[in-house]
Amino acid sequence: MPDPVSRLLQMLELGPAGVDRYRADNPDPGYGSRVFGGQVAAQALWAATSTVDADHVAHSMHAYFVRPGQPGDPIVFDVERTRDGRSFTTRRVLAAQGEEVIFEMSASFHRDEPSVDYQLPPARGVALPDDVSRQLSLIPAAARDRLPVELRELGPSEPDESGWFPSTRRVWMKTKARLPDAPLVHVCVLTFLSDMGAVLGARAPLPQQPLERLMGASLDHAIWFHRPMRADEWFLYDLHAVSNSGSRGLTRGTMHSIDGALGVSVAQEALLRIVDPGRHPR
Amino acid sequence: MPDPVSRLLQMLELGPAGVDRYRADNPDPGYGSRVFGGQVAAQALWAATSTVDADHVAHSMHAYFVRPGQPGDPIVFDVERTRDGRSFTTRRVLAAQGEEVIFEMSASFHRDEPSVDYQLPPARGVALPDDVSRQLSLIPAAARDRLPVELRELGPSEPDESGWFPSTRRVWMKTKARLPDAPLVHVCVLTFLSDMGAVLGARAPLPQQPLERLMGASLDHAIWFHRPMRADEWFLYDLHAVSNSGSRGLTRGTMHSIDGALGVSVAQEALLRIVDPGRHPR
Repeated sequence: MPDPVSRLLQMLELGPAGVDRYRADNPDPGYGSRVFGGQVAAQALWAATSTVDADHVAHSMHAYFVRPGQPGDPIVFDVERTRDGRSFTTRRVLAAQGEEVIFEMSASFHRDEPSVDYQLPPARGVALPDDVSRQLSLIPAAARDRLPVELRELGPSEPDESGWFPSTRRVWMKTKARLPDAPLVHVCVLTFLSDMGAVLGARAPLPQQPLERLMGASLDHAIWFHRPMRADEWFLYDLHAVSNSGSRGLTRGTMHSIDGALGVSVAQEALLRIVDPGRHPR
Repeated sequence: MPDPVSRLLQMLELGPAGVDRYRADNPDPGYGSRVFGGQVAAQALWAATSTVDADHVAHSMHAYFVRPGQPGDPIVFDVERTRDGRSFTTRRVLAAQGEEVIFEMSASFHRDEPSVDYQLPPARGVALPDDVSRQLSLIPAAARDRLPVELRELGPSEPDESGWFPSTRRVWMKTKARLPDAPLVHVCVLTFLSDMGAVLGARAPLPQQPLERLMGASLDHAIWFHRPMRADEWFLYDLHAVSNSGSRGLTRGTMHSIDGALGVSVAQEALLRIVDPGRHPR
């Protein structure tokens, strides 16, 4: 049984399955009734990048989670070459199990063009990872052992005087072991991690939304890669809920490295349905 | 010559052009060398919605501007029925001129599910539209006459002590005439308007980024429709730049109605290239 980081890297090793087609074995990890969305997103981005010249680098992706993926069933990724331009390249990926599309993504790749630098600063007054308890976590200890990342959860911020939560989830993350230096590995691992806890970050921590009755699911996902960032060094994933209504919640997230550089921005809308236990989500 | 609001509504009247295919005449307005991105986005959303049951309502869209559109050349919209679910419907639209894809969009539609309500409040201390000068605008007066909307520009906010601009563009908007009540009209008109000035909102107003040498272009576009909102009543479009680097800028925007309700969220990455005059953008 490989360790979680080795499994993460193996997950990215897609096999060729035809022209611009790739295949993930998608072994059943033995827990969970749905494939983790971050896995499919990372694999789709890997597949798209496999068809792009190396001097064009992923700067954004936009995706929909179309159907829940079945653990244990292989996933086939079909890449459409939407455009090959001089400065920008565009790809679209459809991920399917059998005849069923489970995920679709478009991604854009850009040839480096240096420019001025400006960024949103990280939240102030956030404790550093070494000063945060290992115990506080929305994820149970047994599940944390299976994860490829160490987590230091800070919990949501306090609401301000108008009831607005500046942050609805704040967590330091890094992989449990060193990763290869290839930038694409870090881009894909950050993609994987960006779906971890995003549903919880979309939810306003209101008493009317009890966590135990929440049927949550990622609906869409967008990522912008602003600057190179390592996934095996501490970064702060800071999520804040923008809106909850119609049983949907939109969250925006940022990933800042420990020195404050903004590496990645994320947006995700999640289904936040209050249900009776056992009811099917979609 | 019809007035700008009539032209806006005519623009949404796509003609049938085959199975799940629609056609926009796209008349040349006589100014501008590229089709306005918000137009293509609004038309694509209209085309997608034409294939969806009326009880499923658009709640989000994600798009890439793949190539500049040519004014005067018809645009053909091909809709792919990615999924028809019980609660959610997914569509993808490819917009092309001849053989060239100029735009691609995915959109999701949701059957209403009431839930708790929570939202980001509007920025504080913003002057109401009647108290804002009609003169201050990033858009020249002659161009404003051609627009279907009234604008009241507030300009960017002051930077805070760390040099961060809470808002990089703030503008009150409403159409110059009353629109039909059909919610889809408002969704599509807000889509159109969401691309107005987004590139400028993505740019940090820094001295190193002189506006006169900026070659800007929308790269992608995402919209979330949180709550019904009218496009013919004042709303505040508040944009803030998240990051500028690599000649790209990400902006996040919100549209609040005058009573403070958050109707729409937007995210757009823009090309922010400092160029010599005359150089081609892409």
